[in-house]
Amino acid sequence: MRITLIGSGNVATHLGAALKNAGHRIAQVYSPTMQNAALLAYHLGADAIDNLQQIDTDTDIFIISVKDDAIANVAEQLAKHDILMAHTSGAAVLQQLTAFTDKAGVFYPLQTFSKTKEVNFWDVPMCIEGADESITQSLEALARDVSNNIYRVSSTQRKVLHLAAVFACNFPNYLYGIAQHLLAGSDMSFDMLRPLIIETADKIKTNLPGSVQTGPAVRNDEQTMAAHLQMLSGQNNLQEIYELLSQGIIKNKAAGNAG
Amino acid sequence: MRITLIGSGNVATHLGAALKNAGHRIAQVYSPTMQNAALLAYHLGADAIDNLQQIDTDTDIFIISVKDDAIANVAEQLAKHDILMAHTSGAAVLQQLTAFTDKAGVFYPLQTFSKTKEVNFWDVPMCIEGADESITQSLEALARDVSNNIYRVSSTQRKVLHLAAVFACNFPNYLYGIAQHLLAGSDMSFDMLRPLIIETADKIKTNLPGSVQTGPAVRNDEQTMAAHLQMLSGQNNLQEIYELLSQGIIKNKAAGNAG
Repeated sequence: MRITLIGSGNVATHLGAALKNAGHRIAQVYSPTMQNAALLAYHLGADAIDNLQQIDTDTDIFIISVKDDAIANVAEQLAKHDILMAHTSGAAVLQQLTAFTDKAGVFYPLQTFSKTKEVNFWDVPMCIEGADESITQSLEALARDVSNNIYRVSSTQRKVLHLAAVFACNFPNYLYGIAQHLLAGSDMSFDMLRPLIIETADKIKTNLPGSVQTGPAVRNDEQTMAAHLQMLSGQNNLQEIYELLSQGIIKNKAAGNAG
Repeated sequence: MRITLIGSGNVATHLGAALKNAGHRIAQVYSPTMQNAALLAYHLGADAIDNLQQIDTDTDIFIISVKDDAIANVAEQLAKHDILMAHTSGAAVLQQLTAFTDKAGVFYPLQTFSKTKEVNFWDVPMCIEGADESITQSLEALARDVSNNIYRVSSTQRKVLHLAAVFACNFPNYLYGIAQHLLAGSDMSFDMLRPLIIETADKIKTNLPGSVQTGPAVRNDEQTMAAHLQMLSGQNNLQEIYELLSQGIIKNKAAGNAG
């Protein structure tokens, strides 16, 4: 397929590379900032543009990877070309595109991307939604060229998925930072915790979280929890976070949620 | 060395296997429950005992891997043999042993162990403390036979380390469970989130948490956060957890804690 990327951020960068590696042709990369468009276009062997008026309409799909609040504006400008368009957002509903065209879908890679770290795209869950069955199937076929994990996900489900991803990714990363902060205060290196962080996630490959919960809360070890709370006194919200999450673990266990 | 394991739980199981693989001889395994002692002893080629009166004193070290509140009692019973003893607890101070003997130390593997999952012990940080320098060096030498990551950690530091591990391991695992719960409520499989969880931890191998924080809070995307809070209404403490952790991320960013 001939593919036009609208956007040059983390998602466009990784998705563009995966599509190119799968043998597709990336025709153009658009960014309002020419330098960003040019950099990604160079890596993908595409042309760079910084004005949607310069769009080459000899393409099969517009993949829209811009900030959520810019999607509608881009869709409105591209709709006149009557070419399939798909956004890659977890939070935006399909209706943001179908307000302007029937040839619309969602092509959402559920992963945390950083430009400086390569990702094995074959493992990335691709969440697909189409305005009709034929669009859904086209997008599924394209997704199968880059990933082994294809899911049909409605706009309503995708919102929940995006929320769940905050709990599975953004919040744990914040807690890693708290751990780092605590060690630094006692002259210990964050390196000491890295194997623990990796192993905690690695267990999840083959287990459900409830069945591998460890620590003082799940043992209801009140003495250790009291000592921890005392160590956290005066540290902003850390006591509150410790208490709230520990209570959650204790309640989960009492409810028999072993997974 | 000839090694006697006091305890047959997760730590004794993994540490015992690593020590045996390093060429050490596990002489005896003690557990108050003979069946547990016998199972681990069988795997380690050791003798099983369920009574501390049956301890064979022809050994070089007692490694005490029992519950924190049982350490003192075990130490008191073993002290009369005048043999080096080390406990493997993150939370217990060295003084729990030195109350009964000078030949005491700590041999704490900082990792989350499950009996059903193998761990690459060479990556496990071994946190060492001795009642004197010669004991510290002996325990460091033993630790080097099983791990590439040896640290000297005082009892005061180890308490902080243990607290940090709750934030780095136990709490993230609880959040994984919340994510699973949210997906289940919308008929989606937890499998969808597994690659995200792995990648979030994997980033930490080479980055500090603050520098790879993603999500609505770090972007201060108020619209998405408000929508998420609404989706969580009526779900016990989930709104409170979402708000508290998001505010922490926002504050961190404002303070310029980029890692």
